[in-house]
Amino acid sequence: MDQSIPEPVGGHEPVRLYDVFATDCPVRPIFGDVTSRWATLVITALMARPHRFSQLAARIGGVSEKMLSQTLRALTRDGLISRTVTSTGPIQVSYELTDLGRNLAPRLENLVTWVVHHTSTIQAAQAAYDADAPVPPTVANRC
Amino acid sequence: MDQSIPEPVGGHEPVRLYDVFATDCPVRPIFGDVTSRWATLVITALMARPHRFSQLAARIGGVSEKMLSQTLRALTRDGLISRTVTSTGPIQVSYELTDLGRNLAPRLENLVTWVVHHTSTIQAAQAAYDADAPVPPTVANRC
Repeated sequence: MDQSIPEPVGGHEPVRLYDVFATDCPVRPIFGDVTSRWATLVITALMARPHRFSQLAARIGGVSEKMLSQTLRALTRDGLISRTVTSTGPIQVSYELTDLGRNLAPRLENLVTWVVHHTSTIQAAQAAYDADAPVPPTVANRC
Repeated sequence: MDQSIPEPVGGHEPVRLYDVFATDCPVRPIFGDVTSRWATLVITALMARPHRFSQLAARIGGVSEKMLSQTLRALTRDGLISRTVTSTGPIQVSYELTDLGRNLAPRLENLVTWVVHHTSTIQAAQAAYDADAPVPPTVANRC
């Protein structure tokens, strides 16, 4: 792939450098990394300020230390966050968004905000659907 | 929750009707529905035009009929797509975005486009990370 493609600032034009509909498109796993539950919450938290591991663990309800570690490692590997070790006094490790992560974050936040605003509407749609559509007759169908 | 909250048109303001950092926040599973691999591709495909099931199955590489059915059912239940049965001649079932889905789609597309544009950059970051960081010593650590 051409690494020299200039990074768009706006990013709104529907350019297709990859075909996301192709089975082996490399965009798919990266999109999955970025939009996973824990990655979304880590990136959203880091938009406000850098956090230490323990601060992220306290901020993000329901995340286990293992999942948080895996998420931070994946986002660091993707170049979206950076890990800084401060060795004056007790060693502290903090995480913050890189320039790439800061470029991504508002787009992710925009999607989260949309879902936040429309959760009540979607819950109402789900209730209406469930009222019309009975539960599938066999449990096997739902697996 | 207040169902009378007017739906924002812009959706850019960082309003917090729900706290996504709370463990049981109902936004989380809906965000997961919307950003799942297959939902993202279904919504992206339907931005162009309505599709029949078989057209979606052909368009979206790698999706099984079972996963496509489950995804279409979940998005229909969420009120993001509608299912229309045409009974003149051979019965045809087609899917299209609802107004709610059309409101969401550009935001999802914006995020997909960002990832498409930055996949090469992220792949380079991954390669640099992997060159510095050896593979974890035990397989168990990676599960």
